[in-house]
Amino acid sequence: MSYHDTLRAVMWENESVQLLEQRLLPHQHTFVTINTAQAMEDAIRDMIVRGAPAIGIAAAYGVVFAAKEAYQTAGENWREAIVPLVSALEASRPTAVNLMWALARMQALFPQLTGNPVEALLVEAKKIQAEDIAANYKMGELGAALLPEHCRILTHCNAGSIATGGYGTALGVVRRAQTEGKVAKVYADETRPWLQGARLTAWELLQDNIPVTLLADCAAASLMQKGEIDWVIVGSDRIAANGDVANKIGTYNLAVLAHYHGVKMMVVAPTSTVDMQCASGANITIEQRTKTEVWELAGQRVAAEGADAINPVFDVTPAELVDVIITEKGVVSQPTHEKMLDLMSQNEAII
Amino acid sequence: MSYHDTLRAVMWENESVQLLEQRLLPHQHTFVTINTAQAMEDAIRDMIVRGAPAIGIAAAYGVVFAAKEAYQTAGENWREAIVPLVSALEASRPTAVNLMWALARMQALFPQLTGNPVEALLVEAKKIQAEDIAANYKMGELGAALLPEHCRILTHCNAGSIATGGYGTALGVVRRAQTEGKVAKVYADETRPWLQGARLTAWELLQDNIPVTLLADCAAASLMQKGEIDWVIVGSDRIAANGDVANKIGTYNLAVLAHYHGVKMMVVAPTSTVDMQCASGANITIEQRTKTEVWELAGQRVAAEGADAINPVFDVTPAELVDVIITEKGVVSQPTHEKMLDLMSQNEAII
Repeated sequence: MSYHDTLRAVMWENESVQLLEQRLLPHQHTFVTINTAQAMEDAIRDMIVRGAPAIGIAAAYGVVFAAKEAYQTAGENWREAIVPLVSALEASRPTAVNLMWALARMQALFPQLTGNPVEALLVEAKKIQAEDIAANYKMGELGAALLPEHCRILTHCNAGSIATGGYGTALGVVRRAQTEGKVAKVYADETRPWLQGARLTAWELLQDNIPVTLLADCAAASLMQKGEIDWVIVGSDRIAANGDVANKIGTYNLAVLAHYHGVKMMVVAPTSTVDMQCASGANITIEQRTKTEVWELAGQRVAAEGADAINPVFDVTPAELVDVIITEKGVVSQPTHEKMLDLMSQNEAII
Repeated sequence: MSYHDTLRAVMWENESVQLLEQRLLPHQHTFVTINTAQAMEDAIRDMIVRGAPAIGIAAAYGVVFAAKEAYQTAGENWREAIVPLVSALEASRPTAVNLMWALARMQALFPQLTGNPVEALLVEAKKIQAEDIAANYKMGELGAALLPEHCRILTHCNAGSIATGGYGTALGVVRRAQTEGKVAKVYADETRPWLQGARLTAWELLQDNIPVTLLADCAAASLMQKGEIDWVIVGSDRIAANGDVANKIGTYNLAVLAHYHGVKMMVVAPTSTVDMQCASGANITIEQRTKTEVWELAGQRVAAEGADAINPVFDVTPAELVDVIITEKGVVSQPTHEKMLDLMSQNEAII
């Protein structure tokens, strides 16, 4: 069994959640034990756990802790007591819709629960994780099928095993393509400011013995100019109803470059990432994180004192720059509102 | 007198050159004393001094040391003894043509010198620096004249006072526009991997009380998407005869983005940067520096062990993506081979 089949960023174990401490990767491979709703909220906000699907799963387990706490303090009135705890989880990060999706799915169970709600909610949280892993395998299959032989892939940020329930979205496609012998080269943007590419994607792919080549984010254009990239493959934090894609800052940059150079652009995300309530990318809240992430690197000051900074950590790629969106329900080429509606009404893969 | 009028990265002082130790900026503002050709070669290679015009000036002073050493060891036969010393200087960095230009200009004096050549060569080196500073003031004037009121500028790398003889190329335009009250905002890409933007450009502009806002390189696309950039203004390390521009890695990225978003692209460089022997960008040697620059940040390992990396430190922007090249001899809009020929035959500004 290859490492990725056991590599998990979020694991239920002994009445607690073990979260892979992603802030310390690749130098340390350690886990943090979470067993309160507050601790989960902090872990999401502080990016011990990150990646849209992984955040959703973590939040679902957060609801389990919230229910336990609410039931202990309020008994049968736990449904009232849990409200602020769930709201706090919901506010932990604004862009990835999987967080809201998972919380809504957990809350949808509340009315039908009797007695102590914890066990039933735990089953649901585990189901969310299992379904996410299954979705990733399916997306890996669907995405890899579109790639040519000897494919040279560029990815951005980390949309891997540790950003999801397991296996990964964009990196799930890379893994599947690798097993099919289709991968000639994987390039990973280092992904400033948080360096998810250099720290996480490189580490994760190397666990599976998939060679990976890092580059400064702004070097991607030069690679495309030389004809060295066939597909850009990324994940997403939220896909709007019209197919606009919010993802890690720099994704839109790659989409413009891909468009200019005739490189294909693939977005891989489960339908839990699709927000049909959100008409277009213009309606997606873009998280602004601390300027310190730009001023510093790995805790070390790099920027001149007195300089201002901006740090939007996501951007929006308009649907017209996306060649294909891969979900577990199927593939959407040249996404439009109509095609997204069709997709979301499917129960099965559409290809 | 504002700080930039005295801020110099290369200064002749007491039979030596004082080089601003740019590797330690912005944390330390110190100078390194150079008084041998070998030390100058090392300083250029190791980037104590960087920036195409500054490298040219430093190399010119390097020839002074080389001549002193050659005359000491070989007397009247110094012209033979100096050859390997000049060759070593020439090999110190491959992309910036100002280095070769300055060495050729110094060598052109050799035949006419009699006796000890040092003083005459020193005068020529000082003249190269003085002319570069004058060129920068002229380019500042020509470039700023093209900018609209309330201009929002994005720059990349450091094409400032400390990358030149003084005042700067791209930042010379910014300085001049600032004194004309035209600047609404200056954004600076942090410029991985060496962080010239975060470390040098931010520091340098703040010395002149010009506010500057840093961003991760890959966030520039998002800023342009929101209509927040009017002009991209950069320097150059070599401009080919057809107007193709080699500059810091990421410049081509910005040029594609600017083209896509209808943002103007300005390249500011003295004619010592123009290489009419080089037909197009395809003929420009792109320096590949150590992978460690990508793996590390400020001496701290950030990337996963085992990952490969690429580190091309320049890229080539084709002429068709450049709106205007500003030189001290004049302005070239939509550069072509013919227009570059016209420019280089000018003795005066053409506008």
